[in-house]
Amino acid sequence: MLNPAGSVVPICTLAVDAMGGDHAPEAIVRGVDIAAERHPGVKFLLFGQEAALVPLLRRHKRAAAHSEIRDAREVVGNDMKAAAAVRLRGTSMRAAIDAVAGGHASGVVSAGNTGALLALAKIVLKALPGIDRPALAAIMPSARGDTVMLDVGANASCDSRNLVEFAVMGDVFARTVLGLTTPRVGLMNVGAEELKGDERVREAADILRGTYLAPNFHGFVEGTDIASGTTDVIVTDGFSGNVALKTAEGAVKLVLQMLRSVFTASIATRMGYVLARPGLERLREMIDPRRYNGAMMLGLNGVVVKSHGGTDAQGFAYALDLAIDMAANSFNDRIRDGLARIVDSGALGAREGGKAPRMAAGS
Amino acid sequence: MLNPAGSVVPICTLAVDAMGGDHAPEAIVRGVDIAAERHPGVKFLLFGQEAALVPLLRRHKRAAAHSEIRDAREVVGNDMKAAAAVRLRGTSMRAAIDAVAGGHASGVVSAGNTGALLALAKIVLKALPGIDRPALAAIMPSARGDTVMLDVGANASCDSRNLVEFAVMGDVFARTVLGLTTPRVGLMNVGAEELKGDERVREAADILRGTYLAPNFHGFVEGTDIASGTTDVIVTDGFSGNVALKTAEGAVKLVLQMLRSVFTASIATRMGYVLARPGLERLREMIDPRRYNGAMMLGLNGVVVKSHGGTDAQGFAYALDLAIDMAANSFNDRIRDGLARIVDSGALGAREGGKAPRMAAGS
Repeated sequence: MLNPAGSVVPICTLAVDAMGGDHAPEAIVRGVDIAAERHPGVKFLLFGQEAALVPLLRRHKRAAAHSEIRDAREVVGNDMKAAAAVRLRGTSMRAAIDAVAGGHASGVVSAGNTGALLALAKIVLKALPGIDRPALAAIMPSARGDTVMLDVGANASCDSRNLVEFAVMGDVFARTVLGLTTPRVGLMNVGAEELKGDERVREAADILRGTYLAPNFHGFVEGTDIASGTTDVIVTDGFSGNVALKTAEGAVKLVLQMLRSVFTASIATRMGYVLARPGLERLREMIDPRRYNGAMMLGLNGVVVKSHGGTDAQGFAYALDLAIDMAANSFNDRIRDGLARIVDSGALGAREGGKAPRMAAGS
Repeated sequence: MLNPAGSVVPICTLAVDAMGGDHAPEAIVRGVDIAAERHPGVKFLLFGQEAALVPLLRRHKRAAAHSEIRDAREVVGNDMKAAAAVRLRGTSMRAAIDAVAGGHASGVVSAGNTGALLALAKIVLKALPGIDRPALAAIMPSARGDTVMLDVGANASCDSRNLVEFAVMGDVFARTVLGLTTPRVGLMNVGAEELKGDERVREAADILRGTYLAPNFHGFVEGTDIASGTTDVIVTDGFSGNVALKTAEGAVKLVLQMLRSVFTASIATRMGYVLARPGLERLREMIDPRRYNGAMMLGLNGVVVKSHGGTDAQGFAYALDLAIDMAANSFNDRIRDGLARIVDSGALGAREGGKAPRMAAGS
C-alpha cells in the first residue's frame, strides 16, 4: 500500500511489539536500530511502555529517528494461554496488531508468546479471501540456498485444499522474499511404507498438477530433501512441519556440540581448532540461528512475523528484514493473484468457490 | 524360544535375505561373517541363489561355519511395487519371512525393498494379538545416548490407541535392545500453535497416564528433544516420524558437508584438519549412519529388521546385531506382557478388548 512494487528503497510502516521476548524491550529497540540503518525508508511504530522505551530510544539514535512510540501498558506473558491473551486489552501485542488492522502499518513483528500472537493475528486481521487456513512458514538453510517450509505449526492437521493454498503462499514467498524467479515446490511425503504416504498429500499433488504451479511442481519430497535443497518450497501439514523444523534445529545443535567436545579433547585438537577457527566461524555464520530467526504467518490481511523469544538484537533485526521484504513487495496482493488463478483454472474441482473462507481459530 | 532370557551368549536362528540391498550378496555374507564372530551362538539361514552364495561362503569361513544356504532363485527388485512383490513366489525375501512363520528362525533381516518387506512381513507373520498396527522403529543418536523413535513410516496416520501400542513396544525395545531399566517415554507433539497439537496425541497421553507406563511417561516432546535425548523413547505417527528421521539425517549430512568445505578452504584450515583428525574421526563414529542402520518392524509374530539398501558389511552386521538382541531377549513375549497389563488396567476404556486385532495392510 505504502510501497509501490519495484521501489528500490523499501517504504513501509511496521508495527513492533516492543515488550515481547526474553530480552525486551532492550533487544527489540536495538534490533530496530540495526534495521533502521538497513532500511532508511521504513517507519517503526513501537508498542510498549513509554517509560521504558523513551530512555532506550535516547541511547539508540537511528531507532529514534525512524520510530514513534505508542504507549501500551500491558504485556502478554510468555506463559499466558492464548485464550487469556485474546481477552486481555491494552497489551503491546494486541495494540501492534490493531495498528495493522487499522491500516496504520503494513505488518507486525513480535518476539512474544507465539500462541497468543497467532491467535490474536487470526482474530484481528482475519484470513485473506480464499485462504481457508493461514500457515506459519519458516526459512531453513540447505545445501543449495534457503528453503521455505510451511506449515510449521499453525494447523496440526490439514486437508488437500489447505496444502494447495500453502503451495501458493510458499511460491509467492520464495519469489518475493527469497528473490527466486521460478521457485521449485515440493510436497512432503513418506516414501518408505507400502501405502506410499498420506492420501491428502496425494490428492494435493493431483490438484497442483492442474494449476499454474505445475511447471515448477517437483512432486513429493522427503525429510532429507530439506537439507539437500531439492526444492525451494516445502509444503506440509503443521504437525510434521513443526516436528521437521525442530528436529533439524536439534540435530544441527547436537553435531556442533559434538564438534566442540572433539576440539577440546586434546592439545593437538585444540591447536587444530585455532587453525581452523576462521573456517569454523564461517560455518557458524552459515547456520546461525539468528539468520533463520522469524516464522512468518502467511495468509492474513497483513504481514505477521514471529521472532524467537530468546533472540538478540541481531536476530530481531533479521525478523524485521523479513517483514519489510514482505510488506514492501506486495506479498498479499500476489497471494490473491495466485489464488485467483487457481480458482479460475478449476483445479479445485467441485469445491471451487463453493467453500467460504473459514478461520481455523473459529472452527 | 530357542533363547532362554538371561543367557549370556545369545542363542537363536536368524533368516537372512542374502539377495536384498545394493551390494548383495557380497556385503550380506561379509556382514554375516562379522556378526558370526560377535555372536557365536547364532545360526544364520541364508536365503538366495546358491550358485552366488557358495563361492562367497568359501571366502568367509566364519560365516560359512554358522550359516546354511537355502536356495531361492527369485529376487525382489528395488523398484518393484509391494503388491507385485507379494504375488511373486520363490523370492529370497519371501522365503526368509516364511522361515520365521514356519518356526525355523526367530527373525528375519533384509536390506531389500522396504515396501515389499513390510507388506510381506505383515501378511505372512501377522500382527501380535492385541496389536492393531505394527510399527517401524529406528534408533537415533542423542546428546544422552541412543533414542528409539516409532513409528517411522509404517502407518501414515494413527489413532490414540495405535500411539499407546507404540509406547508399549518402544518401552520394551528400550529395555531389551538399549538395555535401559526404566526408559523414559515421550509423545511427539507441537507446542507452538494455539491448538496445542493434535487431539489424538492428547488422547494418547491421557490413556498412557492411566497405565503401568505412567511413572516413566514424560508427556509431550518436540522435535528438538530427539537430539537432546529428553526421553529414551519417542512415540509418533508414521508420517511425522519418517519426516523427523529423514530430516535429522539430512541436517547432520549438511553440517558435515559444510565442515568438509570449511576444512579444505585454506592451507591453515587443512593443517587444522590434520591436527583435529582423531577427534573428527571420533565425531564421525559417533554419528556413523552404519551404527544407526536398521529399522525394526515391531508388533509382528517374529523379529523383522530392515537394513538400509546402500549399507556395507559393517552396517549390515549392525542390523543383524539388532535382530539378535530382539530375538534373544524374548522381545515379543515382553510386548505381550505389556499389552496384557494395559488391557487389565482398563486404561483403554470402552475399547478394551472390544476391537479385534486388525492388519493395517488389509485395511
